[in-house]
Amino acid sequence: MNDFTKISTTAPKELDKQATKEACQELKEKIQELQQRLYAQSKKSLLILFQGMDGSGKDGATKQVLSGVNPQGVKVKSFKKPSTEELAHDFLWRIHLNVPEKGMIQVFNRSHYEDVLVTRVLGFTSDEEAKSRFANINAFENLLEQSGTKILKFFLHISIEKQRKTFIERLEDPEKHWKYNPEDWKTRESWDKYQKYYQDVFDSCNEVPWNIIPSDENWYKEFLIATKIYETLSEMNLSYPHLPKELETEKAKYLK
Amino acid sequence: MNDFTKISTTAPKELDKQATKEACQELKEKIQELQQRLYAQSKKSLLILFQGMDGSGKDGATKQVLSGVNPQGVKVKSFKKPSTEELAHDFLWRIHLNVPEKGMIQVFNRSHYEDVLVTRVLGFTSDEEAKSRFANINAFENLLEQSGTKILKFFLHISIEKQRKTFIERLEDPEKHWKYNPEDWKTRESWDKYQKYYQDVFDSCNEVPWNIIPSDENWYKEFLIATKIYETLSEMNLSYPHLPKELETEKAKYLK
Repeated sequence: MNDFTKISTTAPKELDKQATKEACQELKEKIQELQQRLYAQSKKSLLILFQGMDGSGKDGATKQVLSGVNPQGVKVKSFKKPSTEELAHDFLWRIHLNVPEKGMIQVFNRSHYEDVLVTRVLGFTSDEEAKSRFANINAFENLLEQSGTKILKFFLHISIEKQRKTFIERLEDPEKHWKYNPEDWKTRESWDKYQKYYQDVFDSCNEVPWNIIPSDENWYKEFLIATKIYETLSEMNLSYPHLPKELETEKAKYLK
Repeated sequence: MNDFTKISTTAPKELDKQATKEACQELKEKIQELQQRLYAQSKKSLLILFQGMDGSGKDGATKQVLSGVNPQGVKVKSFKKPSTEELAHDFLWRIHLNVPEKGMIQVFNRSHYEDVLVTRVLGFTSDEEAKSRFANINAFENLLEQSGTKILKFFLHISIEKQRKTFIERLEDPEKHWKYNPEDWKTRESWDKYQKYYQDVFDSCNEVPWNIIPSDENWYKEFLIATKIYETLSEMNLSYPHLPKELETEKAKYLK
Protein backbone atom coordinates (compact mmCIF):
# COMPACT_ATOMS: atom_id res chain seq x y z
CA MET A 1 0.00 0.00 0.00
CA ASN A 2 1.26 3.52 -0.78
CA ASP A 3 2.03 5.79 2.17
CA PHE A 4 -1.31 5.72 3.99
CA THR A 5 -0.53 8.89 5.96
CA LYS A 6 -1.08 10.77 2.69
CA ILE A 7 -4.75 9.71 2.71
CA SER A 8 -7.04 12.47 3.96
CA THR A 9 -8.58 11.95 7.40
CA THR A 10 -11.60 14.13 6.60
CA ALA A 11 -14.75 13.92 4.50
CA PRO A 12 -14.75 15.41 1.00
CA LYS A 13 -15.84 19.05 1.28
CA GLU A 14 -18.62 18.70 -1.29
CA LEU A 15 -20.33 15.87 0.58
CA ASP A 16 -23.75 16.73 2.05
CA LYS A 17 -23.68 15.81 5.75
CA GLN A 18 -27.43 15.50 6.24
CA ALA A 19 -27.95 13.38 3.12
CA THR A 20 -25.04 11.13 4.14
CA LYS A 21 -26.52 10.62 7.60
CA GLU A 22 -29.85 9.61 6.06
CA ALA A 23 -28.14 7.21 3.69
CA CYS A 24 -26.29 5.73 6.65
CA GLN A 25 -29.57 5.17 8.50
CA GLU A 26 -30.93 3.25 5.51
CA LEU A 27 -27.79 1.14 5.33
CA LYS A 28 -28.10 0.29 9.01
CA GLU A 29 -31.63 -0.96 8.49
CA LYS A 30 -30.51 -3.11 5.57
CA ILE A 31 -27.70 -4.50 7.73
CA GLN A 32 -30.26 -5.43 10.39
CA GLU A 33 -32.29 -7.35 7.81
CA LEU A 34 -29.24 -9.14 6.40
CA GLN A 35 -28.03 -10.05 9.91
CA GLN A 36 -31.31 -11.90 10.47
CA ARG A 37 -30.66 -13.99 7.39
CA LEU A 38 -27.05 -14.65 8.45
CA TYR A 39 -28.36 -15.89 11.82
CA ALA A 40 -31.20 -17.95 10.38
CA GLN A 41 -29.00 -19.55 7.73
CA SER A 42 -26.24 -20.22 10.24
CA LYS A 43 -23.66 -21.30 7.68
CA LYS A 44 -21.27 -18.36 7.58
CA SER A 45 -20.07 -15.67 9.94
CA LEU A 46 -18.68 -12.14 9.82
CA LEU A 47 -15.68 -10.83 11.75
CA ILE A 48 -15.39 -7.04 11.92
CA LEU A 49 -12.06 -5.78 13.23
CA PHE A 50 -11.33 -2.21 14.30
CA GLN A 51 -7.85 -0.82 14.74
CA GLY A 52 -6.82 2.79 15.23
CA MET A 53 -5.00 5.20 17.52
CA ASP A 54 -6.50 6.15 20.92
CA GLY A 55 -9.49 8.39 20.35
CA SER A 56 -10.09 7.25 16.77
CA GLY A 57 -13.61 6.14 17.66
CA LYS A 58 -13.50 2.35 17.74
CA ASP A 59 -16.17 2.17 20.49
CA GLY A 60 -18.32 4.74 18.75
CA ALA A 61 -18.18 2.94 15.41
CA THR A 62 -19.50 -0.25 17.03
CA LYS A 63 -22.22 1.59 18.88
CA GLN A 64 -23.41 3.77 16.02
CA VAL A 65 -23.33 1.22 13.20
CA LEU A 66 -24.47 -1.90 15.05
CA SER A 67 -26.99 -0.64 17.59
CA GLY A 68 -30.30 -1.83 16.23
CA VAL A 69 -28.99 -5.24 15.21
CA ASN A 70 -30.48 -8.08 17.25
CA PRO A 71 -28.05 -8.40 20.20
CA GLN A 72 -28.48 -12.18 20.06
CA GLY A 73 -26.55 -12.18 16.77
CA VAL A 74 -23.65 -9.85 17.65
CA LYS A 75 -20.74 -10.19 20.03
CA VAL A 76 -18.16 -7.53 20.81
CA LYS A 77 -14.75 -8.35 22.23
CA SER A 78 -12.36 -5.64 23.38
CA PHE A 79 -8.80 -6.86 23.57
CA LYS A 80 -6.94 -5.19 26.42
CA LYS A 81 -3.51 -5.81 27.92
CA PRO A 82 -3.15 -9.63 27.92
CA SER A 83 -3.72 -11.53 31.18
CA THR A 84 -1.11 -13.82 32.69
CA GLU A 85 -2.97 -16.82 31.26
CA GLU A 86 -3.10 -15.25 27.81
CA LEU A 87 0.60 -14.41 27.89
CA ALA A 88 1.33 -18.05 28.66
CA HIS A 89 0.04 -18.93 25.18
CA ASP A 90 0.94 -17.87 21.63
CA PHE A 91 -0.37 -14.43 20.64
CA LEU A 92 -3.23 -15.82 18.51
CA TRP A 93 -4.63 -18.09 21.24
CA ARG A 94 -6.92 -15.52 22.86
CA ILE A 95 -7.95 -14.29 19.43
CA HIS A 96 -8.94 -17.75 18.23
CA LEU A 97 -11.06 -18.27 21.35
CA ASN A 98 -13.19 -15.32 20.24
CA VAL A 99 -13.78 -15.87 16.53
CA PRO A 100 -17.47 -16.00 15.55
CA GLU A 101 -19.46 -19.19 15.34
CA LYS A 102 -21.64 -19.75 12.29
CA GLY A 103 -24.50 -17.28 12.04
CA MET A 104 -22.83 -14.63 14.18
CA ILE A 105 -21.27 -11.20 13.73
CA GLN A 106 -18.21 -10.74 15.93
CA VAL A 107 -16.62 -7.33 16.48
CA PHE A 108 -13.00 -7.06 17.59
CA ASN A 109 -12.18 -3.76 19.29
CA ARG A 110 -8.42 -3.99 18.81
CA SER A 111 -7.09 -7.40 17.83
CA HIS A 112 -4.05 -9.57 17.11
CA TYR A 113 -2.59 -6.55 15.33
CA GLU A 114 -1.72 -5.02 18.71
CA ASP A 115 0.97 -7.69 18.89
CA VAL A 116 2.78 -6.17 15.92
CA LEU A 117 2.04 -2.55 16.87
CA VAL A 118 2.20 -1.56 20.55
CA THR A 119 4.67 -4.35 21.30
CA ARG A 120 7.00 -3.04 18.58
CA VAL A 121 6.71 0.54 19.81
CA LEU A 122 7.58 -0.63 23.33
CA GLY A 123 10.45 -2.76 22.02
CA PHE A 124 9.00 -6.13 23.11
CA THR A 125 8.80 -7.42 19.54
CA SER A 126 11.82 -7.26 17.23
CA ASP A 127 11.54 -6.59 13.49
CA GLU A 128 12.38 -10.21 12.81
CA GLU A 129 9.69 -11.44 15.22
CA ALA A 130 7.18 -9.06 13.67
CA LYS A 131 7.93 -10.51 10.24
CA SER A 132 7.29 -14.01 11.50
CA ARG A 133 4.06 -12.87 13.17
CA PHE A 134 2.87 -11.35 9.90
CA ALA A 135 3.13 -14.81 8.37
CA ASN A 136 1.26 -16.30 11.35
CA ILE A 137 -1.48 -13.70 10.97
CA ASN A 138 -1.89 -14.26 7.25
CA ALA A 139 -2.15 -18.02 7.76
CA PHE A 140 -4.65 -17.52 10.59
CA GLU A 141 -6.85 -15.15 8.61
CA ASN A 142 -6.77 -17.54 5.66
CA LEU A 143 -7.91 -20.38 7.90
CA LEU A 144 -10.88 -18.34 9.06
CA GLU A 145 -11.88 -17.21 5.58
CA GLN A 146 -11.59 -20.75 4.22
CA SER A 147 -13.87 -21.89 7.05
CA GLY A 148 -16.73 -19.55 6.22
CA THR A 149 -15.78 -16.48 8.25
CA LYS A 150 -15.68 -13.30 6.19
CA ILE A 151 -13.21 -10.79 7.69
CA LEU A 152 -13.59 -7.01 7.45
CA LYS A 153 -10.57 -5.02 8.67
CA PHE A 154 -11.05 -1.33 9.39
CA PHE A 155 -8.32 1.17 10.24
CA LEU A 156 -9.85 4.32 11.70
CA HIS A 157 -7.59 7.01 10.30
CA ILE A 158 -7.45 10.28 12.28
CA SER A 159 -5.17 13.30 12.36
CA ILE A 160 -3.03 14.04 15.40
CA GLU A 161 -5.02 17.28 15.88
CA LYS A 162 -8.29 15.34 15.98
CA GLN A 163 -6.82 13.07 18.66
CA ARG A 164 -5.95 16.06 20.83
CA LYS A 165 -9.48 17.41 20.43
CA THR A 166 -10.91 14.06 21.56
CA PHE A 167 -8.69 13.87 24.66
CA ILE A 168 -9.69 17.43 25.61
CA GLU A 169 -13.38 16.55 25.20
CA ARG A 170 -12.91 13.68 27.61
CA LEU A 171 -11.50 16.11 30.16
CA GLU A 172 -14.26 18.67 29.65
CA ASP A 173 -17.43 16.58 29.28
CA PRO A 174 -18.54 14.93 32.56
CA GLU A 175 -20.18 12.10 30.57
CA LYS A 176 -16.81 11.34 28.98
CA HIS A 177 -14.53 11.55 32.03
CA TRP A 178 -14.59 7.76 32.37
CA LYS A 179 -12.83 7.46 29.01
CA TYR A 180 -10.04 9.83 30.01
CA ASN A 181 -6.72 8.10 30.53
CA PRO A 182 -3.64 10.22 31.25
CA GLU A 183 -1.47 7.42 29.81
CA ASP A 184 -2.91 8.23 26.37
CA TRP A 185 -0.82 11.43 26.24
CA LYS A 186 2.29 9.33 26.67
CA THR A 187 1.31 6.92 23.91
CA ARG A 188 0.67 9.96 21.74
CA GLU A 189 4.36 10.85 21.91
CA SER A 190 5.05 7.73 19.84
CA TRP A 191 2.57 8.78 17.11
CA ASP A 192 5.13 8.57 14.30
CA LYS A 193 6.38 5.16 15.37
CA TYR A 194 2.80 3.85 15.39
CA GLN A 195 2.17 5.22 11.91
CA LYS A 196 5.36 3.54 10.68
CA TYR A 197 4.37 0.17 12.14
CA TYR A 198 0.82 0.51 10.83
CA GLN A 199 2.29 1.04 7.35
CA ASP A 200 4.25 -2.16 7.84
CA VAL A 201 1.02 -4.00 8.78
CA PHE A 202 -0.82 -2.68 5.73
CA ASP A 203 2.08 -3.75 3.51
CA SER A 204 2.49 -7.20 5.06
CA CYS A 205 -0.98 -8.38 6.08
CA ASN A 206 -3.18 -7.54 3.13
CA GLU A 207 -4.30 -10.93 1.84
CA VAL A 208 -7.50 -9.92 3.61
CA PRO A 209 -7.58 -6.27 2.53
CA TRP A 210 -7.58 -3.28 4.88
CA ASN A 211 -10.16 -0.53 4.72
CA ILE A 212 -8.61 2.83 5.60
CA ILE A 213 -11.47 4.95 6.97
CA PRO A 214 -11.06 8.74 7.16
CA SER A 215 -12.37 9.19 10.72
CA ASP A 216 -12.03 12.80 11.81
CA GLU A 217 -15.80 13.22 11.38
CA ASN A 218 -18.04 10.57 12.93
CA TRP A 219 -20.86 10.88 10.40
CA TYR A 220 -18.50 10.17 7.49
CA LYS A 221 -16.69 7.37 9.30
CA GLU A 222 -19.97 5.65 10.16
CA PHE A 223 -21.28 5.98 6.62
CA LEU A 224 -18.15 4.36 5.15
CA ILE A 225 -18.20 1.51 7.65
CA ALA A 226 -21.92 0.86 7.19
CA THR A 227 -21.47 0.88 3.42
CA LYS A 228 -18.71 -1.70 3.60
CA ILE A 229 -20.58 -3.96 6.04
CA TYR A 230 -23.73 -3.76 3.91
CA GLU A 231 -21.83 -4.59 0.70
CA THR A 232 -20.04 -7.48 2.35
CA LEU A 233 -23.21 -9.04 3.79
CA SER A 234 -24.94 -8.54 0.42
CA GLU A 235 -22.26 -10.60 -1.30
CA MET A 236 -22.50 -13.47 1.20
CA ASN A 237 -25.55 -14.93 -0.49
CA LEU A 238 -27.65 -15.04 2.65
CA SER A 239 -31.17 -16.43 2.59
CA TYR A 240 -33.68 -17.96 4.96
CA PRO A 241 -33.33 -21.75 4.85
CA HIS A 242 -36.17 -23.78 3.34
CA LEU A 243 -38.13 -26.33 5.29
CA PRO A 244 -36.31 -29.65 4.80
CA LYS A 245 -38.09 -31.88 2.23
CA GLU A 246 -38.86 -34.52 4.84
CA LEU A 247 -40.79 -31.92 6.83
CA GLU A 248 -43.07 -30.82 3.99
CA THR A 249 -45.43 -33.58 5.12
CA GLU A 250 -45.81 -31.76 8.43
CA LYS A 251 -47.62 -29.04 6.59
CA ALA A 252 -50.29 -31.48 5.42
CA LYS A 253 -50.50 -32.81 8.98
CA TYR A 254 -50.92 -29.56 10.87
CA LEU A 255 -52.23 -27.02 8.37
CA LYS A 256 -55.85 -27.68 7.66
CA MET B 1 -46.77 -18.32 44.78
CA ASN B 2 -50.42 -19.09 44.15
CA ASP B 3 -51.26 -21.30 41.17
CA PHE B 4 -49.61 -19.33 38.35
CA THR B 5 -51.66 -21.05 35.66
CA LYS B 6 -54.61 -18.96 36.91
CA ILE B 7 -52.81 -15.79 35.78
CA SER B 8 -54.10 -14.50 32.45
CA THR B 9 -51.77 -14.89 29.47
CA THR B 10 -53.30 -11.93 27.63
CA ALA B 11 -53.32 -8.15 27.90
CA PRO B 12 -56.15 -6.41 29.77
CA LYS B 13 -58.92 -5.70 27.24
CA GLU B 14 -59.12 -1.99 28.10
CA LEU B 15 -55.42 -1.37 27.38
CA ASP B 16 -54.69 0.80 24.33
CA LYS B 17 -52.28 -1.09 22.07
CA GLN B 18 -50.90 1.91 20.20
CA ALA B 19 -50.32 3.97 23.35
CA THR B 20 -48.62 0.99 25.00
CA LYS B 21 -46.30 0.54 22.04
CA GLU B 22 -45.32 4.20 22.21
CA ALA B 23 -44.71 3.98 25.94
CA CYS B 24 -42.53 0.92 25.30
CA GLN B 25 -40.46 2.83 22.75
CA GLU B 26 -39.81 5.55 25.32
CA LEU B 27 -38.81 2.97 27.91
CA LYS B 28 -36.37 1.41 25.46
CA GLU B 29 -34.68 4.75 24.90
CA LYS B 30 -34.38 5.28 28.64
CA ILE B 31 -32.88 1.80 28.99
CA GLN B 32 -30.29 2.70 26.34
CA GLU B 33 -29.29 5.79 28.32
CA LEU B 34 -29.10 3.90 31.62
CA GLN B 35 -27.05 1.12 30.01
CA GLN B 36 -24.42 3.71 29.06
CA ARG B 37 -24.13 4.73 32.69
CA LEU B 38 -23.94 1.11 33.83
CA TYR B 39 -21.07 0.56 31.37
CA ALA B 40 -19.25 3.81 32.19
CA GLN B 41 -19.56 3.26 35.95
CA SER B 42 -18.52 -0.38 35.65
CA LYS B 43 -19.32 -1.29 39.25
CA LYS B 44 -22.48 -3.38 38.91
CA SER B 45 -24.05 -5.66 36.33
CA LEU B 46 -27.48 -6.87 35.27
CA LEU B 47 -28.46 -10.46 34.52
CA ILE B 48 -31.75 -10.88 32.63
CA LEU B 49 -33.03 -14.44 32.51
CA PHE B 50 -35.81 -15.68 30.23
CA GLN B 51 -37.65 -18.94 30.76
CA GLY B 52 -40.78 -20.14 29.03
CA MET B 53 -42.28 -22.93 26.94
CA ASP B 54 -41.24 -23.36 23.27
CA GLY B 55 -42.73 -20.54 21.24
CA SER B 56 -43.20 -18.20 24.20
CA GLY B 57 -40.99 -15.59 22.52
CA LYS B 58 -37.71 -15.63 24.42
CA ASP B 59 -35.72 -14.71 21.29
CA GLY B 60 -38.20 -12.02 20.33
CA ALA B 61 -38.16 -10.43 23.78
CA THR B 62 -34.37 -10.03 23.60
CA LYS B 63 -34.50 -8.65 20.08
CA GLN B 64 -37.37 -6.23 20.59
CA VAL B 65 -36.45 -4.84 23.99
CA LEU B 66 -32.65 -4.72 23.69
CA SER B 67 -32.01 -3.85 20.04
CA GLY B 68 -30.81 -0.27 20.20
CA VAL B 69 -28.64 -0.82 23.24
CA ASN B 70 -24.93 -0.49 22.49
CA PRO B 71 -23.91 -4.05 21.53
CA GLN B 72 -20.61 -3.53 23.35
CA GLY B 73 -22.52 -3.57 26.64
CA VAL B 74 -24.82 -6.55 26.11
CA LYS B 75 -24.15 -10.25 25.79
CA VAL B 76 -26.71 -12.93 25.04
CA LYS B 77 -26.17 -16.58 25.90
CA SER B 78 -28.59 -19.29 24.75
CA PHE B 79 -28.28 -22.43 26.81
CA LYS B 80 -28.89 -25.51 24.67
CA LYS B 81 -28.50 -29.21 25.39
CA PRO B 82 -25.30 -29.44 27.48
CA SER B 83 -22.07 -30.54 25.77
CA THR B 84 -20.04 -33.51 26.94
CA GLU B 85 -17.64 -31.11 28.68
CA GLU B 86 -20.50 -29.30 30.40
CA LEU B 87 -22.07 -32.56 31.56
CA ALA B 88 -18.74 -33.50 33.13
CA HIS B 89 -19.23 -30.60 35.59
CA ASP B 90 -21.93 -29.62 38.09
CA PHE B 91 -25.03 -28.08 36.52
CA LEU B 92 -24.10 -24.51 37.52
CA TRP B 93 -20.61 -24.62 36.01
CA ARG B 94 -21.57 -23.51 32.51
CA ILE B 95 -23.90 -20.92 33.98
CA HIS B 96 -21.21 -19.40 36.16
CA LEU B 97 -18.87 -19.11 33.17
CA ASN B 98 -21.41 -16.78 31.56
CA VAL B 99 -22.44 -14.39 34.34
CA PRO B 100 -21.90 -10.71 33.48
CA GLU B 101 -18.74 -8.82 34.35
CA LYS B 102 -19.10 -5.39 35.95
CA GLY B 103 -20.67 -2.85 33.62
CA MET B 104 -22.42 -5.42 31.44
CA ILE B 105 -25.95 -6.61 30.75
CA GLN B 106 -26.10 -10.37 30.24
CA VAL B 107 -29.17 -12.09 28.83
CA PHE B 108 -29.77 -15.79 29.47
CA ASN B 109 -32.06 -17.42 26.93
CA ARG B 110 -32.97 -20.45 29.06
CA SER B 111 -30.78 -21.02 32.10
CA HIS B 112 -29.93 -23.24 35.07
CA TYR B 113 -33.68 -23.67 35.53
CA GLU B 114 -33.71 -26.14 32.64
CA ASP B 115 -31.96 -28.52 35.04
CA VAL B 116 -35.00 -28.60 37.29
CA LEU B 117 -37.54 -28.53 34.44
CA VAL B 118 -36.81 -30.52 31.28
CA THR B 119 -34.64 -32.98 33.21
CA ARG B 120 -37.53 -33.65 35.61
CA VAL B 121 -40.01 -34.09 32.78
CA LEU B 122 -37.66 -36.59 31.14
CA GLY B 123 -37.07 -38.34 34.45
CA PHE B 124 -33.32 -37.61 34.69
CA THR B 125 -33.74 -35.60 37.89
CA SER B 126 -35.60 -37.04 40.88
CA ASP B 127 -37.80 -34.95 43.19
CA GLU B 128 -35.15 -35.25 45.86
CA GLU B 129 -32.38 -34.12 43.52
CA ALA B 130 -34.54 -31.23 42.37
CA LYS B 131 -34.97 -30.12 45.96
CA SER B 132 -31.24 -30.13 46.51
CA ARG B 133 -30.73 -28.20 43.25
CA PHE B 134 -33.22 -25.54 44.39
CA ALA B 135 -30.95 -24.92 47.37
CA ASN B 136 -27.90 -24.77 45.09
CA ILE B 137 -29.68 -22.27 42.84
CA ASN B 138 -30.75 -20.04 45.71
CA ALA B 139 -27.20 -19.99 47.08
CA PHE B 140 -25.79 -19.27 43.63
CA GLU B 141 -28.20 -16.42 42.94
CA ASN B 142 -27.45 -14.95 46.36
CA LEU B 143 -23.74 -15.04 45.61
CA LEU B 144 -24.29 -13.09 42.40
CA GLU B 145 -26.58 -10.51 43.98
CA GLN B 146 -24.18 -9.99 46.88
CA SER B 147 -21.41 -9.42 44.36
CA GLY B 148 -23.13 -6.57 42.53
CA THR B 149 -25.09 -8.50 39.90
CA LYS B 150 -28.79 -7.62 39.88
CA ILE B 151 -30.87 -10.55 38.62
CA LEU B 152 -34.18 -10.18 36.73
CA LYS B 153 -36.06 -13.45 36.16
CA PHE B 154 -38.83 -13.48 33.57
CA PHE B 155 -41.25 -16.32 32.90
CA LEU B 156 -42.97 -15.81 29.54
CA HIS B 157 -46.46 -17.11 30.25
CA ILE B 158 -48.43 -18.28 27.19
CA SER B 159 -51.54 -20.35 26.61
CA ILE B 160 -51.35 -23.73 24.93
CA GLU B 161 -53.47 -22.32 22.07
CA LYS B 162 -50.95 -19.51 21.52
CA GLN B 163 -48.15 -22.08 21.32
CA ARG B 164 -49.99 -23.99 18.59
CA LYS B 165 -50.46 -20.76 16.65
CA THR B 166 -46.75 -20.03 16.86
CA PHE B 167 -45.72 -23.50 15.63
CA ILE B 168 -48.15 -23.18 12.71
CA GLU B 169 -46.70 -19.77 11.81
CA ARG B 170 -43.26 -21.33 11.67
CA LEU B 171 -44.58 -23.87 9.19
CA GLU B 172 -46.36 -21.29 7.07
CA ASP B 173 -43.97 -18.32 6.99
CA PRO B 174 -40.82 -18.99 4.86
CA GLU B 175 -38.87 -16.50 7.03
CA LYS B 176 -39.69 -18.61 10.10
CA HIS B 177 -39.08 -22.12 8.73
CA TRP B 178 -35.64 -22.15 10.35
CA LYS B 179 -37.28 -21.97 13.76
CA TYR B 180 -39.55 -24.94 13.09
CA ASN B 181 -38.63 -28.05 15.03
CA PRO B 182 -40.85 -31.11 14.82
CA GLU B 183 -39.60 -32.20 18.26
CA ASP B 184 -41.48 -29.25 19.76
CA TRP B 185 -44.80 -31.06 19.18
CA LYS B 186 -43.53 -33.92 21.28
CA THR B 187 -42.43 -31.62 24.12
CA ARG B 188 -45.87 -30.05 23.92
CA GLU B 189 -47.44 -33.35 24.98
CA SER B 190 -45.82 -32.81 28.40
CA TRP B 191 -47.35 -29.33 28.79
CA ASP B 192 -49.03 -30.13 32.13
CA LYS B 193 -45.89 -31.67 33.59
CA TYR B 194 -43.92 -28.57 32.66
CA GLN B 195 -46.50 -26.31 34.28
CA LYS B 196 -46.33 -28.40 37.44
CA TYR B 197 -42.54 -28.22 37.62
CA TYR B 198 -42.59 -24.50 36.84
CA GLN B 199 -44.93 -24.03 39.82
CA ASP B 200 -42.42 -25.91 41.92
CA VAL B 201 -39.65 -23.56 40.72
CA PHE B 202 -41.70 -20.45 41.50
CA ASP B 203 -42.44 -21.81 44.97
CA SER B 204 -38.88 -22.88 45.74
CA CYS B 205 -36.58 -20.38 44.03
CA ASN B 206 -38.09 -17.00 44.81
CA GLU B 207 -35.46 -15.31 46.98
CA VAL B 208 -34.79 -13.46 43.75
CA PRO B 209 -38.42 -12.92 42.68
CA TRP B 210 -39.95 -14.19 39.43
CA ASN B 211 -41.80 -11.92 37.04
CA ILE B 212 -44.69 -13.77 35.38
CA ILE B 213 -45.23 -12.05 32.03
CA PRO B 214 -48.52 -12.57 30.16
CA SER B 215 -47.01 -13.24 26.72
CA ASP B 216 -49.75 -14.15 24.24
CA GLU B 217 -49.41 -10.68 22.67
CA ASN B 218 -45.89 -9.46 21.87
CA TRP B 219 -46.62 -5.76 22.35
CA TYR B 220 -47.85 -6.32 25.91
CA LYS B 221 -45.06 -8.75 26.76
CA GLU B 222 -42.42 -6.30 25.53
CA PHE B 223 -43.97 -3.41 27.43
CA LEU B 224 -43.95 -5.34 30.72
CA ILE B 225 -40.37 -6.49 30.26
CA ALA B 226 -39.13 -3.03 29.27
CA THR B 227 -40.92 -1.52 32.28
CA LYS B 228 -39.26 -3.95 34.66
CA ILE B 229 -35.79 -3.51 33.14
CA TYR B 230 -36.16 0.27 33.23
CA GLU B 231 -37.31 0.27 36.86
CA THR B 232 -34.49 -2.05 37.88
CA LEU B 233 -31.78 0.00 36.19
CA SER B 234 -33.28 3.18 37.68
CA GLU B 235 -32.90 1.76 41.16
CA MET B 236 -29.26 0.77 40.65
CA ASN B 237 -28.01 4.29 41.28
CA LEU B 238 -26.03 4.54 38.06
CA SER B 239 -24.03 7.63 37.27
CA TYR B 240 -21.07 8.66 35.15
CA PRO B 241 -17.93 8.50 37.28
CA HIS B 242 -16.17 11.75 38.18
CA LEU B 243 -12.64 12.52 37.14
CA PRO B 244 -10.41 11.28 39.98
CA LYS B 245 -9.20 14.15 42.20
CA GLU B 246 -5.57 13.58 41.27
CA LEU B 247 -6.48 14.18 37.62
CA GLU B 248 -8.15 17.55 38.17
CA THR B 249 -4.69 19.09 37.67
CA GLU B 250 -4.71 17.70 34.12
CA LYS B 251 -7.45 20.15 33.32
CA ALA B 252 -5.23 23.09 34.21
CA LYS B 253 -2.44 21.55 32.18
CA TYR B 254 -4.33 20.88 28.94
CA LEU B 255 -7.33 23.21 28.95
CA LYS B 256 -6.16 26.70 28.22
